[in-house]
Amino acid sequence: MSTDLGREMHALVERLYPLCRSITGDGVRSTLDIVGELIPLTVHEVPTGTQVFDWTVPREWNIRDAYIADSSGARVVDFRASNLHVVGYSTPVDTTMTLDELRPHLHTLPEQPDLIPYRTSYYEPDWGFCLAQSTLDSLPDGRYRVVIDSTLADGHLTYAEHVVPGRVADEVLVSCHVCHPSLANDNLAGVAVASALARRLAGANPRYTYRFLFIPGTIGSITWLARNHERVGRIRHGLVLACAGDPGSLTYKRSRRGDAEIDRVVAHVLAASGRPHRIVDFSPYGYDERQFCSPGFNLGVGCLTRTPYAGYPEYHTSADTPDFVTPEAMADTLETVWEVVGVLEGNRHYVNLSPYGEPQLGKRGLYESLGGRSDTKQAQLAMLWVLNLSDGDHSLLDIAERSGLPFAAVAAAADALHDADLLKE
Amino acid sequence: MSTDLGREMHALVERLYPLCRSITGDGVRSTLDIVGELIPLTVHEVPTGTQVFDWTVPREWNIRDAYIADSSGARVVDFRASNLHVVGYSTPVDTTMTLDELRPHLHTLPEQPDLIPYRTSYYEPDWGFCLAQSTLDSLPDGRYRVVIDSTLADGHLTYAEHVVPGRVADEVLVSCHVCHPSLANDNLAGVAVASALARRLAGANPRYTYRFLFIPGTIGSITWLARNHERVGRIRHGLVLACAGDPGSLTYKRSRRGDAEIDRVVAHVLAASGRPHRIVDFSPYGYDERQFCSPGFNLGVGCLTRTPYAGYPEYHTSADTPDFVTPEAMADTLETVWEVVGVLEGNRHYVNLSPYGEPQLGKRGLYESLGGRSDTKQAQLAMLWVLNLSDGDHSLLDIAERSGLPFAAVAAAADALHDADLLKE
Amino acid sequence: MSTDLGREMHALVERLYPLCRSITGDGVRSTLDIVGELIPLTVHEVPTGTQVFDWTVPREWNIRDAYIADSSGARVVDFRASNLHVVGYSTPVDTTMTLDELRPHLHTLPEQPDLIPYRTSYYEPDWGFCLAQSTLDSLPDGRYRVVIDSTLADGHLTYAEHVVPGRVADEVLVSCHVCHPSLANDNLAGVAVASALARRLAGANPRYTYRFLFIPGTIGSITWLARNHERVGRIRHGLVLACAGDPGSLTYKRSRRGDAEIDRVVAHVLAASGRPHRIVDFSPYGYDERQFCSPGFNLGVGCLTRTPYAGYPEYHTSADTPDFVTPEAMADTLETVWEVVGVLEGNRHYVNLSPYGEPQLGKRGLYESLGGRSDTKQAQLAMLWVLNLSDGDHSLLDIAERSGLPFAAVAAAADALHDADLLKE
Repeated sequence: MSTDLGREMHALVERLYPLCRSITGDGVRSTLDIVGELIPLTVHEVPTGTQVFDWTVPREWNIRDAYIADSSGARVVDFRASNLHVVGYSTPVDTTMTLDELRPHLHTLPEQPDLIPYRTSYYEPDWGFCLAQSTLDSLPDGRYRVVIDSTLADGHLTYAEHVVPGRVADEVLVSCHVCHPSLANDNLAGVAVASALARRLAGANPRYTYRFLFIPGTIGSITWLARNHERVGRIRHGLVLACAGDPGSLTYKRSRRGDAEIDRVVAHVLAASGRPHRIVDFSPYGYDERQFCSPGFNLGVGCLTRTPYAGYPEYHTSADTPDFVTPEAMADTLETVWEVVGVLEGNRHYVNLSPYGEPQLGKRGLYESLGGRSDTKQAQLAMLWVLNLSDGDHSLLDIAERSGLPFAAVAAAADALHDADLLKE
Repeated sequence: MSTDLGREMHALVERLYPLCRSITGDGVRSTLDIVGELIPLTVHEVPTGTQVFDWTVPREWNIRDAYIADSSGARVVDFRASNLHVVGYSTPVDTTMTLDELRPHLHTLPEQPDLIPYRTSYYEPDWGFCLAQSTLDSLPDGRYRVVIDSTLADGHLTYAEHVVPGRVADEVLVSCHVCHPSLANDNLAGVAVASALARRLAGANPRYTYRFLFIPGTIGSITWLARNHERVGRIRHGLVLACAGDPGSLTYKRSRRGDAEIDRVVAHVLAASGRPHRIVDFSPYGYDERQFCSPGFNLGVGCLTRTPYAGYPEYHTSADTPDFVTPEAMADTLETVWEVVGVLEGNRHYVNLSPYGEPQLGKRGLYESLGGRSDTKQAQLAMLWVLNLSDGDHSLLDIAERSGLPFAAVAAAADALHDADLLKE
Repeated sequence: MSTDLGREMHALVERLYPLCRSITGDGVRSTLDIVGELIPLTVHEVPTGTQVFDWTVPREWNIRDAYIADSSGARVVDFRASNLHVVGYSTPVDTTMTLDELRPHLHTLPEQPDLIPYRTSYYEPDWGFCLAQSTLDSLPDGRYRVVIDSTLADGHLTYAEHVVPGRVADEVLVSCHVCHPSLANDNLAGVAVASALARRLAGANPRYTYRFLFIPGTIGSITWLARNHERVGRIRHGLVLACAGDPGSLTYKRSRRGDAEIDRVVAHVLAASGRPHRIVDFSPYGYDERQFCSPGFNLGVGCLTRTPYAGYPEYHTSADTPDFVTPEAMADTLETVWEVVGVLEGNRHYVNLSPYGEPQLGKRGLYESLGGRSDTKQAQLAMLWVLNLSDGDHSLLDIAERSGLPFAAVAAAADALHDADLLKE
């Protein structure tokens, strides 16, 4: 993996960072426009009021400006400095009130007094500002001008798809959320890794069809699932990508099934990498795996992050800047996902066509002729393992796991044996 | 759990302690009379000679007096001082013999020289005395008067049932043995805890029907099973209560099945308690779980004790007095059983009626409206877990175990979701 | 196990050691002649060219002499000193060449410079010499006479069977390879243990039929399987015996199934022995278990060795002499196999004929009459376990494993209960 790719991904994060995204609105559209410069996107606009399972597509939110100004007219809290200052989906406001009247609308992080928190109120009409505790502490009593120049009106929910066609209709889903404003690790890094993966797959002529979703969290995945209910059956494996760029090590959260092929593949790749990593069980809290793994779908979709949700102090604060994510970390995430793709692509069930005793590999040039040595090579061991376990019940991943051999060695052995007509798929 | 209850249970132990119980006879009847003052009992009298599976109800044994007197007429071993002095089911004796002739009939504990052992000979006609090794050592050679004023004659085997009717016919069995003479922990403490549980259930309008058995060990449970063969199919769960009052921590012995619901429920309650405890596998030695778990029945019946069978030096000796059992320990046993009952009562299988993606909890007032925070509350997590796993295959206990949440939180979440028409049973 | 038996086995190893065995030829025949003096053998001769599954029986190889002589005519490498000096299946040679021309045909162990390696080239026509690195280092440049007086011609593959008839047609297979030249642990020790086991079984009137194979490795087992394809279904259990005499502790390699009865029985015997031992998972590399456990057969055949394949520095070198194997080690291997046979023979599934509650053992004289004691004897516990678990699903081995009691105690309890008409098979 070149560091060039890491730098390209980081440049995308920096470019997307200033936009004020939410679950609807022009911030999402601008984000998809930029991603669309890298990979072709099909953008969907779903009207406000559309019923999607138990939910209704909400009104579209857009914001132009917002501030709190003191009696001198100076902005003490200014949306133009950070879009985190406004609670997402804030209703319009233009009024004057005392600091005490304002306080119920102010959100701070007393334990991280210099950081601005990230807050939203999508489904309960409300308005508010987020600010550093230290800023709040510095505000004198008195009256303040409070302005939120937003609109909350019928419009659309916007999401995009990108498909890399495969040789089979079975799909691998890669999903990332695009609804967070100026937060780099959560989730512009995920968007960048997904985009880079899509570009890399474009030239790979994959077996599976790969479907990338760039969607707002929760309502976006529910909307996609509702509009693609019949397509869901094609999804064989999936990954939600989030928090993909911080310097921490990788964490994989298993699907609800716990032993889905994606769960085993990611665990195999992470273990084989020798790098520190964590694998955690599914829980119905986190990112859109919650929806893909709801009991009506129960898809084999896990979630790959670096430091997971709420696990780093910068999480959901103004400290989650492009400086917090690194080209190296994003390149590492991408490389891991690429290895996962490689195992998914190569994992087959074969049947040994010569199952009674071992076939004579030597006469096919597949075995060293000089017997008696004790240093049998990995390639030969891999062939023996593939022959021994290829009874239709064991996948190549099963064989790699049971033998302790690298998946690539097992897959290469299977290729050689298949070429020698000793295996059929 | 009030200490009042503990003191009441201890008072019952003290009142029952002096009675000379055995597997038949008036000591059992007197015991049941006293328990019957607390909870209504149906007393069964099964005639001697009744065939109960492979066994035959034995003759009834009663005893009025017994002693060994020296040449001066002084009682050196006296039934009136402790009913443990006589081997249970001893045949009548009235004779004079030398100490050496008497020795084969004398039982001591050489390693606990000041304690009287507890011995019986129910099915092999015999007689004998139990005494402290120190007493035996002090006896001079010479002739002794040996008297056992007992009768062993056709009569009845006596046991009692108490039923707390439930909303369903499925039953929870609570069984305790009432055949031991002056031994407090084994098993007057079990009798006291069972009686207190029955009283507590009386006002609880439980789902299950609770059947309490006060029976002599082995022959009593075999008799009950033989007379209730058709009813056995109704027993869904059960506990044998024994050694319920010593100061040691709780031990649960699993049913023969090992993973019966009762096994998982007790393990969950004990683990959630944070108290030291032990869980041991089934073995076909111990109390009446041996019979309930015989292969023809294989019921989900475990055994709850504090320090188990033969695990304390006072076991089956004159040191197992009311002073050995404490109100606090019995209250703790009762409280644990009460929590087990709570989980059994509340453990259901639900089906999520909105299984495609998560339902929108916010519009039902079940979810906090302000997004972005990382400190989601237990109640909300519990709802997400219940929704995610309520596919008909997972019980609330399964959900509690998988989520690591307390059963009570999971059950409360299920109640809230059921009230919101998001679950059906 | 008498040390006499150990000494007898060691004497057999010493007698067989000088013979030059290979996968075919007169060395195998002479070996089988000698074994045949101890146990009756059926010797099979399979013609060259016979198709056996994917393989073809190769030409027969015989060798009379071989050497490398220096310009003075002195033999610097001499087959008469060690038959390991010639690469097995070497084609005939009679020529003169320089040392440099000869080098590609010379095999040494640079890291064990004083040992002669063992090498073969069965299926790729070739010739070569094996020698100590120190010998090679001492050879001056110059021309050498190189002679291998061998024949490689149509003939036969030779193997032998010995059958101990049992009361049932189900078979236990015991297989050992007879194709290695002067290597004592690999596998004359295996041959010696197998022969001693066969003699011991002769007088034992076993339940199972025991089939012993003395076969060349790989091609021998494949040939036997091909010629006995229909008989294979009778094989219930099997052991490959190899490396059976070195001073290391025992290692058992599980069958491909991993939980076949033989796997559990050997594990039970080794654990109960209290001796150090290792149990390793199946891998498709090793001895003839590779063939018996090929996916088309997947037999319950494991491999018992002391120090396993390639695990000792003497492996496949001239240091694997009769001095390397000990009478005590072979006796220990034999004793272990004998215990395995004992468990296999005794392992049954019984059904408790009195499954409702416990049967009354006392009236049948199977239970102590004096109740109240806490030191119940192993024999009585074993009866309770057998009664409790004899539901048709649990074997006596299952019961021994679950109870933690020795298999022999469980089997004795089952015998007693069977005699009392409380069990049926």
